[in-house]
Amino acid sequence: MKLVSIMILFLLIAINSFAQEKPNIVIVFLDNFGYGEPGFNGGGIIRGTETPRMDQLAKEGLRLTNFNVEVQCTPSRSTLMTGRYAIRSGNATVPVGDGIYGLLRWEITMAEMLSDEGYATGMFGKWHLGRTPGRFPTDQGFDEWYGIPNSTDESPYSSMTGFAESGVPVTYVMQSKKGETPKKVKPYNLKYRPLIDRDLTDKAMKFMKKQVKAEKPFFVYLPYTATHFPTMPHPDYDGKTGNGRWADLLLQIDGYTGELLDKIDDLGVADNTIFIFTADNGPEAMDFGGTSMTAETAINGSPGPWRGSLFTGFEGALRVPFVVRWPGKIQAGKTSDEIVHAMDLFPTLANFAGGKVPNDRVIDGVDMSEFFLGNTNKSGREGFIVYMGNDIFAVKWRNWKLHFKEQNSWNGEMTTYTMPRLYNLYDDPQEKTNVLFPHTWVPKAALNQLKEHVISLKKNPPIKAGQAD
Amino acid sequence: MKLVSIMILFLLIAINSFAQEKPNIVIVFLDNFGYGEPGFNGGGIIRGTETPRMDQLAKEGLRLTNFNVEVQCTPSRSTLMTGRYAIRSGNATVPVGDGIYGLLRWEITMAEMLSDEGYATGMFGKWHLGRTPGRFPTDQGFDEWYGIPNSTDESPYSSMTGFAESGVPVTYVMQSKKGETPKKVKPYNLKYRPLIDRDLTDKAMKFMKKQVKAEKPFFVYLPYTATHFPTMPHPDYDGKTGNGRWADLLLQIDGYTGELLDKIDDLGVADNTIFIFTADNGPEAMDFGGTSMTAETAINGSPGPWRGSLFTGFEGALRVPFVVRWPGKIQAGKTSDEIVHAMDLFPTLANFAGGKVPNDRVIDGVDMSEFFLGNTNKSGREGFIVYMGNDIFAVKWRNWKLHFKEQNSWNGEMTTYTMPRLYNLYDDPQEKTNVLFPHTWVPKAALNQLKEHVISLKKNPPIKAGQAD
Repeated sequence: MKLVSIMILFLLIAINSFAQEKPNIVIVFLDNFGYGEPGFNGGGIIRGTETPRMDQLAKEGLRLTNFNVEVQCTPSRSTLMTGRYAIRSGNATVPVGDGIYGLLRWEITMAEMLSDEGYATGMFGKWHLGRTPGRFPTDQGFDEWYGIPNSTDESPYSSMTGFAESGVPVTYVMQSKKGETPKKVKPYNLKYRPLIDRDLTDKAMKFMKKQVKAEKPFFVYLPYTATHFPTMPHPDYDGKTGNGRWADLLLQIDGYTGELLDKIDDLGVADNTIFIFTADNGPEAMDFGGTSMTAETAINGSPGPWRGSLFTGFEGALRVPFVVRWPGKIQAGKTSDEIVHAMDLFPTLANFAGGKVPNDRVIDGVDMSEFFLGNTNKSGREGFIVYMGNDIFAVKWRNWKLHFKEQNSWNGEMTTYTMPRLYNLYDDPQEKTNVLFPHTWVPKAALNQLKEHVISLKKNPPIKAGQAD
Repeated sequence: MKLVSIMILFLLIAINSFAQEKPNIVIVFLDNFGYGEPGFNGGGIIRGTETPRMDQLAKEGLRLTNFNVEVQCTPSRSTLMTGRYAIRSGNATVPVGDGIYGLLRWEITMAEMLSDEGYATGMFGKWHLGRTPGRFPTDQGFDEWYGIPNSTDESPYSSMTGFAESGVPVTYVMQSKKGETPKKVKPYNLKYRPLIDRDLTDKAMKFMKKQVKAEKPFFVYLPYTATHFPTMPHPDYDGKTGNGRWADLLLQIDGYTGELLDKIDDLGVADNTIFIFTADNGPEAMDFGGTSMTAETAINGSPGPWRGSLFTGFEGALRVPFVVRWPGKIQAGKTSDEIVHAMDLFPTLANFAGGKVPNDRVIDGVDMSEFFLGNTNKSGREGFIVYMGNDIFAVKWRNWKLHFKEQNSWNGEMTTYTMPRLYNLYDDPQEKTNVLFPHTWVPKAALNQLKEHVISLKKNPPIKAGQAD
């Protein structure tokens, strides 16, 4: 009988360890950070700086060369948080006017899902999913939030002639805890713009430390304001590379990423922390011909070998840098070109965290846990629908893209094709050569998912943009 | 006295070892192989295949992200062989008509320089520096040659309607030994086009084996016909990736490179062999709109993150993949963005081989030996003149490019700027945003080298294109 009681004791210990072993989750989510920026994707030194911490991270994790997002800030964040196409949630575009927008409280966010599993959930950075009461991060599953409700294009507003008299409200950095109305901390202007990402990093590290002490699994969502315009590195990094502000900012991101990783090491939780490094959409490309940008402020974020920038349907908008590290669980140094989408992170992380994927609504994400863990070499995702705002621009299927509409930049000149264009992404990463003829068999295969998607939208009408709770 | 004689004996042994220790040199020189193709430059899997051997080579050697060439086949080969701008040698363009062209016998080639130092010199592949008696590789320093005098665009000729009756001679694969008139081996047609690179690899390996047995240092120059149009992988590789012919061809190159490296290992000379992997110029980009190419045969070689294809002045034409491996001498796994040019290989290899750099003519190349050996982090090259044919298209200086002329493809529509355009390559790898204003200080610094170059050309008038020996 003694043996049995020892066995029961062991079993209890095992169950307890397992309960404590819910993995921590950190998502570094950069803003308009192109595929071609990190050294691990062929950037780094050609952009004016080494990126040793990112590159080391890639060596320690799984790097995806075909990780896709939605092509604008708000849709991309919507899909990350919900595991659903942004169109379903009424978030297909960034908000341009001043109306209500964002996630309905009805949506179940990744933060809510993890919160239900006992996670401490902290968000530090840019939300862009609602700026009205009931739609802030701490209304949507986060225990605490420090950051900005909208985007960094608002940071220069108060420096512009005419703005003060416009009646448009000044943007504030805000903070709140779950259940609170967010408080205005300070104006988000050009004075604070270079400083904010430093604060986000510090607050994230403090949060992690607190949770480790409390023996609580944590979820840190860190949507940095870099590399969104205006390009203003922190004074610690400004001038550091000698190769210009973009290089300085890239080094800053590398440094902050390194600090986070070091902190996770110091806290002794590296082996039990899933660390994801990625971005919301392809790079900014602000040619100063098309806007009032000056030569000094023009931005040419790098999509690497792909065509296009944010707000297009091209691979440069869709593919962003992606590394996931989970020591001992996810194979170190592996690289894959399998198709994965940001919407897949919800069900995948739910699986890792023992969380629930909602079954009362459409979830478009695919559980990638077996793929991430290396139990299969296939992601299980054959493709997806490429939205640009409310328009279906293309269907991606395996190494093919079928384009119905195109635009070359965020500037909003859209071309509609009466006959869709087909690109072979292996042969033609720049999506230049329409090979619909003689490959007319490809649409026959590729369009099935569009058909399914359209049927699904009819069965489950999407939430309307600007719909109230 | 006994001690002295022992010392003399040691000295003799040392001298003898040193004599035997002239490093072997292998240059794999691909045709129209873009910066973005190898896995080590962000290609590989996104092009449809892993490139494990190239990637491993990069880990074992020094990888340069800013290794530059001339932007057409003939000029690039001219500059590699002579250490001089191609314009000096009358080889600024590929030959389009049927006249005399190529290197004058007066030129001193890399093969002649190494031959003078006791090297066995073998060339296997495409010459493109002369097709008339006295101008073949074995007239220019190579002990033996097997390959084609011109280029692979000639391989489909005999399949084309009207060619047989045109009077234009059929192209032959040729071979010769030093002092011989090359013999025609077989027609270079679409039957042999997919097979030739296999034969080049075999002949190169056989040559190396023979020299190792003879205890002779060897120089193998291996200008493959891949990846020049038409894209036809060897039957061993055709269909192997399942991702199309381009991917198959990329895997073939990887495989052949691996075979060469394995052979060097097997021969026991890896530590004493400088292995260079590079290409003649940026990728082919044959849009089927601009030519009679079909969708099936259109080629979109990848320049990676850079703009442009061959026959342009953009970085995509200038920067090619580059790795140099010399175990124990050149630091393994190092990457540098320092500017190096193909013309620098002549003086650099001369230094490594104990060879002579001619002092009776202008040599434009810079000795990179200290940089390659890691004794300095600076290449010592601040920039160079960018020729496109006989025209000076641009001046490259540090991370800046000043463009006087541009064209977007090989198709030959040239734009001349009455005011030059300036690009910052760190900020703007796609060379899109002209930042001449407010950076008008850059030309003041950048144009010094153009001034020196023009003075040098006046002092040393270049050989005229088509000039007889």
